[in-house]
Amino acid sequence: MSKKVFAVIGTGAIGGYYGARLHHGGHDVHFLLNSDYQHVVDNGLRVDSHYGDFSIPSSDLNAYSAVADMPKADVVLVALKTTQNHLLDSLIRPLLKPNTLVMLLQNGIGAEQEVAEAFDLPYVGGGLCFICSNKVGPGHIDHIDYGRITIGVYGQSGIDALHAFASDLTQSGVEVDVDPKIIDARWKKLLWNVPFNGLSAVLDSDTATMMDCAELVDLSKAIMIEVQHAAQTTDTEIPMSLIDTMLRNTAKMKPYLTSMLLDRRNHRELEIQYMYKNAIDLAASHGVTMPKTTALYEQLCFINKQIKSV
Amino acid sequence: MSKKVFAVIGTGAIGGYYGARLHHGGHDVHFLLNSDYQHVVDNGLRVDSHYGDFSIPSSDLNAYSAVADMPKADVVLVALKTTQNHLLDSLIRPLLKPNTLVMLLQNGIGAEQEVAEAFDLPYVGGGLCFICSNKVGPGHIDHIDYGRITIGVYGQSGIDALHAFASDLTQSGVEVDVDPKIIDARWKKLLWNVPFNGLSAVLDSDTATMMDCAELVDLSKAIMIEVQHAAQTTDTEIPMSLIDTMLRNTAKMKPYLTSMLLDRRNHRELEIQYMYKNAIDLAASHGVTMPKTTALYEQLCFINKQIKSV
Repeated sequence: MSKKVFAVIGTGAIGGYYGARLHHGGHDVHFLLNSDYQHVVDNGLRVDSHYGDFSIPSSDLNAYSAVADMPKADVVLVALKTTQNHLLDSLIRPLLKPNTLVMLLQNGIGAEQEVAEAFDLPYVGGGLCFICSNKVGPGHIDHIDYGRITIGVYGQSGIDALHAFASDLTQSGVEVDVDPKIIDARWKKLLWNVPFNGLSAVLDSDTATMMDCAELVDLSKAIMIEVQHAAQTTDTEIPMSLIDTMLRNTAKMKPYLTSMLLDRRNHRELEIQYMYKNAIDLAASHGVTMPKTTALYEQLCFINKQIKSV
Repeated sequence: MSKKVFAVIGTGAIGGYYGARLHHGGHDVHFLLNSDYQHVVDNGLRVDSHYGDFSIPSSDLNAYSAVADMPKADVVLVALKTTQNHLLDSLIRPLLKPNTLVMLLQNGIGAEQEVAEAFDLPYVGGGLCFICSNKVGPGHIDHIDYGRITIGVYGQSGIDALHAFASDLTQSGVEVDVDPKIIDARWKKLLWNVPFNGLSAVLDSDTATMMDCAELVDLSKAIMIEVQHAAQTTDTEIPMSLIDTMLRNTAKMKPYLTSMLLDRRNHRELEIQYMYKNAIDLAASHGVTMPKTTALYEQLCFINKQIKSV
């Protein structure tokens, strides 16, 4: 049996880390790079990791600046921000062969179904990365902590491919949880992301300062309950105890700057389509409204417009 | 018949202007001042007005630094911000005699009822000032434009006193509309204030920039519709056409900085109790929820907390 081919689309903090882990675990990994391409061809890829540093020397690295040059892949890891998803057609299509598992390592909801329909794929996987990792320079990733990934799949027939991929990750030193129905995992992550990413971006505040205001805790909880009700439309049951636990843990956390707040401060486009609009539309298609989430989304649209107009 | 006595509580951009107009119209007006007291005793009160400048020389001015020194009044004009309403007991009580008309020239809803109950008054008036006026120095008011005032009364028996006050104003050169049921006028003003004051303060934006974002227009309209439904709980009918007209006019207005945005930028406490909380609670007491208004209010609580903690 020939070796599985992995393609990494977006070699940044997430794609670069998991791709390098798979390579380090002995897999055949092919990296698509953009602005870092020449630097990585010259110097290889470097991972400063909490679990021990390692590098991939340039001589041992399959780096590409164009998808057309890459081999067709058994697993395509997409680690772009969802704001780039309009590029997926040109980036994924050339890599597909029968039974390719596309894995979307992204935030939000709805992308697996979208990709499955766009490429007429029987299944598309998704991954939620619980990791603290930054790209600190060209081809240089600083893995600060964590790294566990929850994976699942959209489309029943993909479960074997998913488990095979889980084994590849485990064997490469990555902790994996398999949550077969990806949408369950995605709603649970949205439960925190929808209130805290959005409110922190609108109010330009860290989580601790937010949790110190009783009215804002009420609002966060009300939004979480809207997400809980929205999740029921896809048969995802979120217990009330999970909401209370998340709120308690958030109150205990050190002041935390959410990714959306950092995006705002750095004038980067906010990921509101997949994290808000798709969730709102999905719920609405089942007759469930999310008024407070919608109000927050509309404020984020305004902020996004300001960011994009600069 | 002896001359009516007017007391002005809060001699700033609003109280100073209307008090000076009444004095200029020949009425017996007594002004309570705080930090400007000594300056006004020495130099009088100056109004640079769009309709012609005028002054009240110190020799002709009844200025006070303490309520205890003031005569009991027939009409008490309260022109403090509602954030100061916890002071009303000590400021109004000494001025009351049988049939005193207290007039609250303030924003928001619920203060007339509160004052009527607190002082066991049969009626309390309210005024909505459509004026562009600023205090630009001690005892110095710059009246830039407009000046029309809509007055009404809480408590049926006050209608004669209200009409008498309307005559005093008219005779002093102030344009007056009488909307007998004050709460009708207050809801109509909230229709604009609730979305635009709050959203402009949260998003730190002028109205033109806000109206340029389709999602934010949707949110503003949704909040206006919540106010419309809330108003129905007090039998105030706001036609949908008024909402559409207000939105059209707001879109055509030059970029406008709302008073709440200016308060935020100047680190002054926001008037959210009377403009938001009272409206939400009043509607809730009739079983009407205002989810998007509540979300906005909770965000404003957060901002207010930041302002007050500085």
